[in-house]
Amino acid sequence: MERIDSETVWEGRIGSVRIDRFRYDDGEEAEREVVAHPGAVAVVAHDGERLFMVRQPREPVDEPDLLELPAGKLDHDGESPLETAQRELAEEIGKGARDWKHLKTFYTSPGFTDEVCHVYEATDLYDQSAEADEDERIEIVTVPLDRLDDAIQDCRDAKSLAGLLWLRAFER
Amino acid sequence: MERIDSETVWEGRIGSVRIDRFRYDDGEEAEREVVAHPGAVAVVAHDGERLFMVRQPREPVDEPDLLELPAGKLDHDGESPLETAQRELAEEIGKGARDWKHLKTFYTSPGFTDEVCHVYEATDLYDQSAEADEDERIEIVTVPLDRLDDAIQDCRDAKSLAGLLWLRAFER
Repeated sequence: MERIDSETVWEGRIGSVRIDRFRYDDGEEAEREVVAHPGAVAVVAHDGERLFMVRQPREPVDEPDLLELPAGKLDHDGESPLETAQRELAEEIGKGARDWKHLKTFYTSPGFTDEVCHVYEATDLYDQSAEADEDERIEIVTVPLDRLDDAIQDCRDAKSLAGLLWLRAFER
Repeated sequence: MERIDSETVWEGRIGSVRIDRFRYDDGEEAEREVVAHPGAVAVVAHDGERLFMVRQPREPVDEPDLLELPAGKLDHDGESPLETAQRELAEEIGKGARDWKHLKTFYTSPGFTDEVCHVYEATDLYDQSAEADEDERIEIVTVPLDRLDDAIQDCRDAKSLAGLLWLRAFER
């Protein structure tokens, strides 16, 4: 499969939309609309007893604030995914971590967007405040690790579900 | 928080992009770009011994074919999520199921899209072929259930990870 044409039809702050044309190995061609996204990180941060999560308004979805992992977009030039995760952890929950482990990287919805999400586990935590982004309205929520299954049931977004379920399956 | 204005800036087959303006309870206002999506379903289908998964090209991401749960968009008028799941299971792997269980519904990436994904478990399977969509290029992959952890490691998309990890955590 090869991309033979690409046209950007909208550009905004979250990313852009392009229409790509592909040719498959058998010669057939198809057009696909793609939302190009810079990518994101999410952090499973815990001190062995408590998980540090956040509640925040998610304007695109018509819901009360969602319970989520600390997370953010790869929107700072030259920053690696791990550095973004470290910055977001400090900005959103005021913590640094001495131990970082990459858990999984996945596409959030590969049928229409190239958004990729890198999930890290952060442990050996210490206090480290950082200035939050101007328009973030974030409440920190601590969850006892022995209530992990309740937190999983409460989560309503893919990165938090995948991150916490991964922790439950392979890291405990 | 209330939405006080909304303007559609692009419309396509996968959905549309709109710019919404919100007013928070404290009076501050903010603008958000939202990719409006019809929603999707994914199916964890197994016969107690084998999982039925698919490999298919995902044009938006620059990768070899991804190993995924059978899945599809809610793009047929009047069809419920369960009916979409039943149709996709027949189209993609040629199976019907006598037993359907809703596992979880989640947002794939609530920072920029309202896309929701409903995940079902389908068991007590029987053969039932259905015509596939014209431009789907799908290979059926059966995975022994005792290799579930390997399948989880191989998956690179959120719905398949969340669905298989959920199965592992709560349904086995």
